[in-house]
Amino acid sequence: MFDLAGKTAENIKKIRENKPLIHNITNFVVMNYTANVLLAMGASPVMAHAENEVEEMVAFAGSLVLNIGTLTDQWVDAMVLAGKKATTLGKPIILDPVGSGATAMRTAAAKRILAETKVSVVRGNASEILSLGVEGAGGRGVDALHAVDDAGVVAKQLAQDLRTTLAITGPVDLVTDGARVVRVEGGHNLMPLVTGTGCSATATIGAFLAVDPDAFSAAATGLAFFGIAGEQAGAVSSGPGTFMINLLDALHSLSPEEVARRCRFSVA
Amino acid sequence: MFDLAGKTAENIKKIRENKPLIHNITNFVVMNYTANVLLAMGASPVMAHAENEVEEMVAFAGSLVLNIGTLTDQWVDAMVLAGKKATTLGKPIILDPVGSGATAMRTAAAKRILAETKVSVVRGNASEILSLGVEGAGGRGVDALHAVDDAGVVAKQLAQDLRTTLAITGPVDLVTDGARVVRVEGGHNLMPLVTGTGCSATATIGAFLAVDPDAFSAAATGLAFFGIAGEQAGAVSSGPGTFMINLLDALHSLSPEEVARRCRFSVA
Amino acid sequence: MFDLAGKTAENIKKIRENKPLIHNITNFVVMNYTANVLLAMGASPVMAHAENEVEEMVAFAGSLVLNIGTLTDQWVDAMVLAGKKATTLGKPIILDPVGSGATAMRTAAAKRILAETKVSVVRGNASEILSLGVEGAGGRGVDALHAVDDAGVVAKQLAQDLRTTLAITGPVDLVTDGARVVRVEGGHNLMPLVTGTGCSATATIGAFLAVDPDAFSAAATGLAFFGIAGEQAGAVSSGPGTFMINLLDALHSLSPEEVARRCRFSVA
Repeated sequence: MFDLAGKTAENIKKIRENKPLIHNITNFVVMNYTANVLLAMGASPVMAHAENEVEEMVAFAGSLVLNIGTLTDQWVDAMVLAGKKATTLGKPIILDPVGSGATAMRTAAAKRILAETKVSVVRGNASEILSLGVEGAGGRGVDALHAVDDAGVVAKQLAQDLRTTLAITGPVDLVTDGARVVRVEGGHNLMPLVTGTGCSATATIGAFLAVDPDAFSAAATGLAFFGIAGEQAGAVSSGPGTFMINLLDALHSLSPEEVARRCRFSVA
Repeated sequence: MFDLAGKTAENIKKIRENKPLIHNITNFVVMNYTANVLLAMGASPVMAHAENEVEEMVAFAGSLVLNIGTLTDQWVDAMVLAGKKATTLGKPIILDPVGSGATAMRTAAAKRILAETKVSVVRGNASEILSLGVEGAGGRGVDALHAVDDAGVVAKQLAQDLRTTLAITGPVDLVTDGARVVRVEGGHNLMPLVTGTGCSATATIGAFLAVDPDAFSAAATGLAFFGIAGEQAGAVSSGPGTFMINLLDALHSLSPEEVARRCRFSVA
Repeated sequence: MFDLAGKTAENIKKIRENKPLIHNITNFVVMNYTANVLLAMGASPVMAHAENEVEEMVAFAGSLVLNIGTLTDQWVDAMVLAGKKATTLGKPIILDPVGSGATAMRTAAAKRILAETKVSVVRGNASEILSLGVEGAGGRGVDALHAVDDAGVVAKQLAQDLRTTLAITGPVDLVTDGARVVRVEGGHNLMPLVTGTGCSATATIGAFLAVDPDAFSAAATGLAFFGIAGEQAGAVSSGPGTFMINLLDALHSLSPEEVARRCRFSVA
């Protein structure tokens, strides 16, 4: 495997220098926090979901983040419209299939986006990712019903089937493009107690996709950075509230060199 | 009156052990904070408002939280749909009639939800609660136009009329199911300076309803817990910003035993 | 120029005493933070966007804040409806043309609101403001493509053309009603790294408009207050997360006298 630690530092530097515009069509719960996460790391977020402007907006963007939490049919239509335009323009797309597997509507929305647009990365927990390929995997909202270990067995095949890169997050994250597989350590046990940390990991990969043409590398290095920031924040927080705030500070203050020194990749 | 302090501790323990899924259809302003409040105390929030998934989602949930802030007709339709399903399934519903009495639309929406679904608890300020029963009580947004003392006189009768439990919050909270009445002390004067603290008190009761079949007890103990957390946060905060964050930490770190020791109930 | 420092103190006092209701129709990303900013300074925010209640709601309000971030046609219709009612009732309106110039839809929406309602103040960055009058000024989301210095040259004429007061924010803010021009210093370099600080500056002016009938003075003193609060917060923050929180504390704790002592106005 090539030098993912060095690549992590390089990507962080590029984001801070280039301030790529990241177009998000995401859910109401996390819009504010996702925007703050992207700003903190140096990217430029924009949120826009109207069908009469998404195509124009995505043309300015370095990448497109699609997140199906709090979805309605109208929002899915807007996501597909923006996604088709991004596909035509060759802009990378990352999909967060929030709650896929939990309700029929969410599973159908995630599968529709995968079918109608070219998705570079899907970021979800094991349950959500598994719902995209395996019949009857089921789910219960955004909870992880399956451990990352179980998911690892089928992830590589599923990435091949879906022709995309999968970023499966949990206590240890797993990234695969169907050929390469890497595990990424990091994070903190307060992370799942703050809403939108998963969605923010997705947006972080979105920012990395805007500066790194290799989706596998963008996903792995983005998760590494986000995980190290989580560790940093967790070390100085007294609960989920202070963690949420300190995570933004960490994303802003961590130097590329320190992240490279601390990140932990391993071949799966 | 039975041991409400002990019941408070018991309910907190159950929430942290069972992590009940709380289905929220709530307003845009407070979605993020409400989700974080529920996560901090140990519950599992999900926000979903699409008419084609709310019935499926509520079937997984331990309770349903309906909040009419930033409402539109479409959202009220979704609330009623989810509420009818919850009623059929015997899942407890809590209604937060944000701004009822202030505009005709809000009052009508609150009354419609009460008429078409079985609401276990209504949580609001005195003005909002009074608007549900008394003609011409009026209101001005979410401000409390009436002191809790005035409301106490009519609350018991109103609870009987509406066949629900009322949780009227203010400097001192009042809970009644039409038969029993209790006052709950707690909170902090920074609380009204953070948007969504009222809505979060509602969501907290929602979590308590998921583990406590007695709506009166769930409402009183939920408000006691939320108030003690507010006191704890207020003691270490320098303004509304830090209070907002410290409240999340307090909800996470307070032990059931300490809450039981500190909560203050009194017969009204 | 009259005593703007003294006027700043006077306006802050009036907001804290009168707690004016500020009706916001704003974007999903900043709703929560905007509401908290207004509460922290002593105002009473309400968010309401349904076409069947905005006219009733605005009648209670001291001012109306219209913000076109995350807009759709339906939201623009609601803004125009509320704005027309506010115009009829003589309530001041402030417009935040988020992203105007970036997409055709946003530029059209901002221009429509300006044409169909009486807007007292427009608050935006130079790029957004310039897009309202100059053909082909263009833009890229909410980024400032033009320095405030460039904008100053044309601002006075544009204010005359649009018959409104312009509040152009950047490293140094510029306010003009077409006759008077003033520059306002303040703020902190962490401010642009928190989403919604621009929108919150708009809402702050909205609160000042509710207590100050002179739109030029309301805009200049509102920006001065917000900028001093930013300086105060920046001095005690370690990154954008803590800054976001400390800004709320500063808006709450700064005395009118201290703000008057620290604010820096200069004739442009």
